Amino acid sequence: MDKPKIATCTAPVNIAVIKYWGKRDEELILPINSSLSVTLHQDQLKTTTTVATSRSFQEDRIWLNGKEEDITHPRLQSCLREIRRLARKRRNDGDPSLDLSHKVHICSVNNFPTAAGLASSAAGFACLVYTLARVFAVEGELSGIARQGSGSACRSMYGGFVQWIMGQKDDGKDSIAQQVEPETHWPELRILVLVASAERKPVGSTSGMQTSVQTSCLLKHRAESVVPGRMVEMIEALRRKDFAAFAELTMKDSNQFHATCLDTYPPIFYLNSVSQQVINLVHRYNRHYGETRVTYTFDAGPNAVIFILQQHVPEFVRVVQHFFPPETNGGQFIKGLPVKSASLSEELKRAIGLEPMPKGISYVISTKAGPGPRIVEDPAQHLLGSDGLPKETV
Amino acid sequence: MDKPKIATCTAPVNIAVIKYWGKRDEELILPINSSLSVTLHQDQLKTTTTVATSRSFQEDRIWLNGKEEDITHPRLQSCLREIRRLARKRRNDGDPSLDLSHKVHICSVNNFPTAAGLASSAAGFACLVYTLARVFAVEGELSGIARQGSGSACRSMYGGFVQWIMGQKDDGKDSIAQQVEPETHWPELRILVLVASAERKPVGSTSGMQTSVQTSCLLKHRAESVVPGRMVEMIEALRRKDFAAFAELTMKDSNQFHATCLDTYPPIFYLNSVSQQVINLVHRYNRHYGETRVTYTFDAGPNAVIFILQQHVPEFVRVVQHFFPPETNGGQFIKGLPVKSASLSEELKRAIGLEPMPKGISYVISTKAGPGPRIVEDPAQHLLGSDGLPKETV
Repeated sequence: MDKPKIATCTAPVNIAVIKYWGKRDEELILPINSSLSVTLHQDQLKTTTTVATSRSFQEDRIWLNGKEEDITHPRLQSCLREIRRLARKRRNDGDPSLDLSHKVHICSVNNFPTAAGLASSAAGFACLVYTLARVFAVEGELSGIARQGSGSACRSMYGGFVQWIMGQKDDGKDSIAQQVEPETHWPELRILVLVASAERKPVGSTSGMQTSVQTSCLLKHRAESVVPGRMVEMIEALRRKDFAAFAELTMKDSNQFHATCLDTYPPIFYLNSVSQQVINLVHRYNRHYGETRVTYTFDAGPNAVIFILQQHVPEFVRVVQHFFPPETNGGQFIKGLPVKSASLSEELKRAIGLEPMPKGISYVISTKAGPGPRIVEDPAQHLLGSDGLPKETV
Repeated sequence: MDKPKIATCTAPVNIAVIKYWGKRDEELILPINSSLSVTLHQDQLKTTTTVATSRSFQEDRIWLNGKEEDITHPRLQSCLREIRRLARKRRNDGDPSLDLSHKVHICSVNNFPTAAGLASSAAGFACLVYTLARVFAVEGELSGIARQGSGSACRSMYGGFVQWIMGQKDDGKDSIAQQVEPETHWPELRILVLVASAERKPVGSTSGMQTSVQTSCLLKHRAESVVPGRMVEMIEALRRKDFAAFAELTMKDSNQFHATCLDTYPPIFYLNSVSQQVINLVHRYNRHYGETRVTYTFDAGPNAVIFILQQHVPEFVRVVQHFFPPETNGGQFIKGLPVKSASLSEELKRAIGLEPMPKGISYVISTKAGPGPRIVEDPAQHLLGSDGLPKETV
């Protein structure tokens, strides 16, 4: 058997603070507005993907989280086709070492449960494109290809604070992601993912945003008249590391996104009673201190993503634990970056004054902003064996 | 003791299908958009008010639902002042029988619990103004005065289908209600109020809409660019008795109102998990039949108001009872207009496919469109005795 050409990479999850919702082109995945996200650290949340290519492979194949999946998925095919196109262009430019007729095997795993409700498709497609590019020796701007796998995947191609510029062209060539600030820009910023114990699967984002574009007049207004100004404001707040400005705009934009979901016909609900309680808790916490210390944002699901400066994390986590008493004894309630213990004053509890919701939050992932995709150099980490099939341990 | 001049009237509740949310003038209660409502029948929901005036009364006084309240409430004072102003004008025109220096006693009761979460202030202020006008022999356009008590009260001055035209003038003289069609126009239309068992008092509508006007850019867009077209559409749908058109616009406008609440900062939630389940249930019910048979609308609280044609009421009520199993054995679950029994197919249950929420709905009020304020001729019905004080039975 021919020795396969192989590469393994990792890519991060990102969470939008100016939301992407709605496409102007379904095929190319071109959005109706620009968006901006924070890349989460891969120590806590990442996708790992191995791509191998070999003369001996009979067909393209893919395994996701241990299960073989359908390689003919149109968005997967878009990414494969675009990478091969660039590779072919490169070979024409003078690199004859690649045989593009070889088939690929792809194997991908997440280090976090799908049940966490985090947009795994962004990390997944970013990692796929980054790894394919490595195997096919493609360089340069790749976010436009990742975008064709999953819109928000383009933002996972960079670390830190990333904008996805919507672009104007019909062919989508100018709809790409750009780093606004690197992950080292704001080291005091911490991120908490509050994983809500959701009962049911909400409406998927692809069909949800289609219905919104077709039916919500508020979404059209948001995309055209609200988001452009917010992008400018958000980038300025980030550059200045102005937490209050960043936090308020983040909350407003999350709420406006969910407002457009409610303006959709039939309406879409992603915020459940736990989400509403988190929102109320954050506003009351901030009001108690007379300053905006904590902010929330919600994607197409009930989980809150909280941004907060490092010094306020211990107390706020105690507040969350108090108002969402966990099922376990607390040991496993906080995952990820360690959180110091803190006390909780009766005064603060009273100021918040909500009825505790036992088991409303399953656990909290404590993390921070992190880097973009990375190459894994250690061959022992490949997810595919020398036979081109997933290793037993996957 | 001087024999008091006395009158007793009743006035209805109304439910908006094009929503009013936001004032352009807080003092005069001038709205940022026109709105349209259905007047509910007083057999099920009404306010009764007695007004007496006598030389012997020392001061203006008011009793609401058996409890004396503060007469100096600014909006109450607005209504009293405006009625007295009109009465004075009329006396100047030649009627010397009224002594406007006499004080008034006001006594008002609702035939429905405040806990039902229905906007009792609309019926209350409509009834107050209508009864004051009777005592002071004031005639003509009164909705502009009721509006100054509570915005939506102006719509309770008429029966059937009523629009509140926002008007353009700074003095509010053109911001009045008008009947679009009388209550006899659409006799097949039935109304069900699904009273949700709410845990907590939501944000009041007065302060809620102030915050929305100040912070929601979607509300501004809605008022300026969406509602004008919807008013025209709604009036046409009503004139044609086009249930599907009426129903769809009603749902869309309710959802858009709640969307602007969510776009408010801090966000306001009026829809709870019971409301969300009602919304999902209605959409799945309509989808099952491939036509819009049922519609919902929600005001500033979790209770659904359902519109449905008479022939579909029995089955739909069974559906509600199935997915919100009541606490009682069902005897008291339906109040108001009788509802025939009906069977519920397994197919329909499966098509809706929601997890039942026991006790989510306390009870259902079955009613229809009804007339505007009425004079109660029977003196035995006065709520104030000949001494000008509330009768024992109140």
